[in-house]
Amino acid sequence: MRSLKLTLAYDGTAYAGWQRQANGLSIQQVVEEAFGPLFPDSGHELPVVEGASRTDAGVHALGQVASVQVDLTLTTSAIQRALNARLPGDIRVLDVADATPAFHARAHSVGKAYRYRIETTPVLSPFDRHYVWHAPWIRDVDVMQRAAAVCLGRHDFVSFQAGGSTVRETVRTIHRFDVSRAGSEIVIDIEGDGFLRHMVRALVGTLGEMSSGARPADSMPAILEARDRQAAGPTAPPQGLTLVSVAF
Amino acid sequence: MRSLKLTLAYDGTAYAGWQRQANGLSIQQVVEEAFGPLFPDSGHELPVVEGASRTDAGVHALGQVASVQVDLTLTTSAIQRALNARLPGDIRVLDVADATPAFHARAHSVGKAYRYRIETTPVLSPFDRHYVWHAPWIRDVDVMQRAAAVCLGRHDFVSFQAGGSTVRETVRTIHRFDVSRAGSEIVIDIEGDGFLRHMVRALVGTLGEMSSGARPADSMPAILEARDRQAAGPTAPPQGLTLVSVAF
Repeated sequence: MRSLKLTLAYDGTAYAGWQRQANGLSIQQVVEEAFGPLFPDSGHELPVVEGASRTDAGVHALGQVASVQVDLTLTTSAIQRALNARLPGDIRVLDVADATPAFHARAHSVGKAYRYRIETTPVLSPFDRHYVWHAPWIRDVDVMQRAAAVCLGRHDFVSFQAGGSTVRETVRTIHRFDVSRAGSEIVIDIEGDGFLRHMVRALVGTLGEMSSGARPADSMPAILEARDRQAAGPTAPPQGLTLVSVAF
Repeated sequence: MRSLKLTLAYDGTAYAGWQRQANGLSIQQVVEEAFGPLFPDSGHELPVVEGASRTDAGVHALGQVASVQVDLTLTTSAIQRALNARLPGDIRVLDVADATPAFHARAHSVGKAYRYRIETTPVLSPFDRHYVWHAPWIRDVDVMQRAAAVCLGRHDFVSFQAGGSTVRETVRTIHRFDVSRAGSEIVIDIEGDGFLRHMVRALVGTLGEMSSGARPADSMPAILEARDRQAAGPTAPPQGLTLVSVAF
């Protein structure tokens, strides 16, 4: 078997997220099915394509990385062309590379970078509607930046983990957490060694409440300390979030 | 009756174009129907909303202007909010203003600006798929710019008019026709006193053929002179085109 590293970009608007599921079309399923025509035997079992990040429904990717073990002798560029010819236009394979044996995108990733976009303009551009959180009430970027800085470094982020998660180790290290304004848009860049389920969106929703005055601007240390999802703010909507890149 | 000037932005992907038609949902129809709930009498006849430009199916707008005569006493900002509350997210009313009596957006416009985007990258970003013409074979921007310059000023553009058009006066004046490159993207800005049906797209398709060498780089004067649609190149696809603004 041959081990491949795929780099993918996708518009997540039409999908139920990365991960295969019984109800709803996932990006993983569409990518796995795109491999079908590459095998000479039409009854060949589809390979399992493992993504580094299990992006939620409506979340986008500029640089998702996935691993797959396949029995193919085609060149990497021929595989890329064949997959893109089969995939719909909202999913693109940006690169295919041979990887070390048993390369596993999720297990072997050591860092991920996400971007979250908030638009504060009164009337949202039709071209932004699938790619930003429209939140005109969010104002104070300095408050958000100060609260974000508290999160830098190694912390237990269980207060920002979606209910129902079964992950036991909830300590993560954040290397970068920047909040910047570009006109009426607020851009949040966050990088870390890994993220809990809904963690980025719950952090953004919490910063948003601080920014609008609905929550004390200096409450981030207490929220982390509480180790309780109820202590943090709401989960910001998925369409503002993009997985930018994965590090190995 | 009160005369209003509406400024609209829309993502044309899901629509059969601006103009109302028997088959397919038009932007005009959706905007006219959004007025319905503003009238106290539920049986009130819908007003006719006239757009300055009859954008084709899949063509977008950043600044379409439309006129409408309505019997409403609401403030312009209340009308804007009410329309946006009713409209889908891919159509937004950017501004509502009181206009001179009998203002007619199409008849009274004196200029229009369009932008056409071409993407030459080998693998098209999923986020661009509805907004550019993916044409990796288009290379030489200088050739396009030189041919565009020939079109400046007052010419008979009937060679670039869609077949079946019944417009008799086919002379138009182009004030600006710029072709520029931004990375792998080619941006074409064209402004004039008016445009024939499919004229911008036929000009772009013709420039594209010149750029790739499929058509002589110096053939624009002969194409204009021919006064024959067959003398020009193909009509570029609609999704690359955006109506930027309308002048009065």
